[in-house]
Amino acid sequence: MMQTKEVLLLLTEGFADWEAAYAITGIRMSQQYAVKTIAAAPGPVESMGGLRTEIDYVLENYSNFDNLAMLILPGGFGWQEGRHDDIASFVKKVREQNVPVAAICGATIFLGKHGFLDGSKHTGDELELFEEEAGYGGTDNFVLAQVAVDGGFVTANETAAVDFAHAIFGLLKVQSDEDNDGWRDYFNNGMVQ
Amino acid sequence: MMQTKEVLLLLTEGFADWEAAYAITGIRMSQQYAVKTIAAAPGPVESMGGLRTEIDYVLENYSNFDNLAMLILPGGFGWQEGRHDDIASFVKKVREQNVPVAAICGATIFLGKHGFLDGSKHTGDELELFEEEAGYGGTDNFVLAQVAVDGGFVTANETAAVDFAHAIFGLLKVQSDEDNDGWRDYFNNGMVQ
Repeated sequence: MMQTKEVLLLLTEGFADWEAAYAITGIRMSQQYAVKTIAAAPGPVESMGGLRTEIDYVLENYSNFDNLAMLILPGGFGWQEGRHDDIASFVKKVREQNVPVAAICGATIFLGKHGFLDGSKHTGDELELFEEEAGYGGTDNFVLAQVAVDGGFVTANETAAVDFAHAIFGLLKVQSDEDNDGWRDYFNNGMVQ
Repeated sequence: MMQTKEVLLLLTEGFADWEAAYAITGIRMSQQYAVKTIAAAPGPVESMGGLRTEIDYVLENYSNFDNLAMLILPGGFGWQEGRHDDIASFVKKVREQNVPVAAICGATIFLGKHGFLDGSKHTGDELELFEEEAGYGGTDNFVLAQVAVDGGFVTANETAAVDFAHAIFGLLKVQSDEDNDGWRDYFNNGMVQ
């Protein structure tokens, strides 16, 4: 029997509760992937909102890359201090296996600092990153699409948790493109229809 | 020295990761309140997205209502099964102390079933609850304001995590009304300005 592929959520102290919340829920609900937590140390890791989350794997012991579908890095206070070379080494290993890495907010800055976004349309600069403009079907609303997908990386701005999830769902094919766009519009716009 | 007042996040199995995420982060970041988790049993409690969260208090042992600023009930799968009479008793005690209760998604249905929303403008029916229309300053966007505040209860729809937090921040006075509206618009609209 084939093992269910897993998506890793890499947690650092003070990780932002909302940023990967939509993404991990949709991934897990698709029943196509397991969602597991990983951290530099055994944990628990405390979120920005004060939730202490248990950790499934420690970075240095993880080796099951054949079974890995994606690595997700939420933002948060943890990225503001230190270089996190251990996490950078892990990201490098993940990308060497051609597994996509999705980062949001402070985690995109971390990727930029370590050169992962060089030569891509990700700039590592939140203020410049998200300038792609997109219209949302069925309404007169035009918003900035605050997410970029390029070179095996997804990057997004802190206010774009829904668009971040939408881009991740697209890469992981958790639902049809039509359903995925409908999901995004519903969560971005509320009950407008 | 006065004890820091606390906000309780009541977690049930399969609670929705995103629904209270903005709220608890803003509350905790204000440094005016502590955020604590409470559940019917000692936990950990697993979220919809698969995060196992540690629990600070068990319902039957909690008695420090003088120190309680708010009870928050995120939605999720837990509300779909059973009556949760233990939680209903707890909500009753909280309201008897005149402490506000904020519920989103499935948790509003739970409140409605137990009669907590009778005679208020909350209907307990998500499809009817959130019909108040509001314009967001500075843009041409008009969206449905999917949150209601009445009779000591905040209720909100699953797509309204940001507006839910905004209403909660207003009740708890975590920031000025102007800053609060600015926060909401920023997170609802992204980098539109």
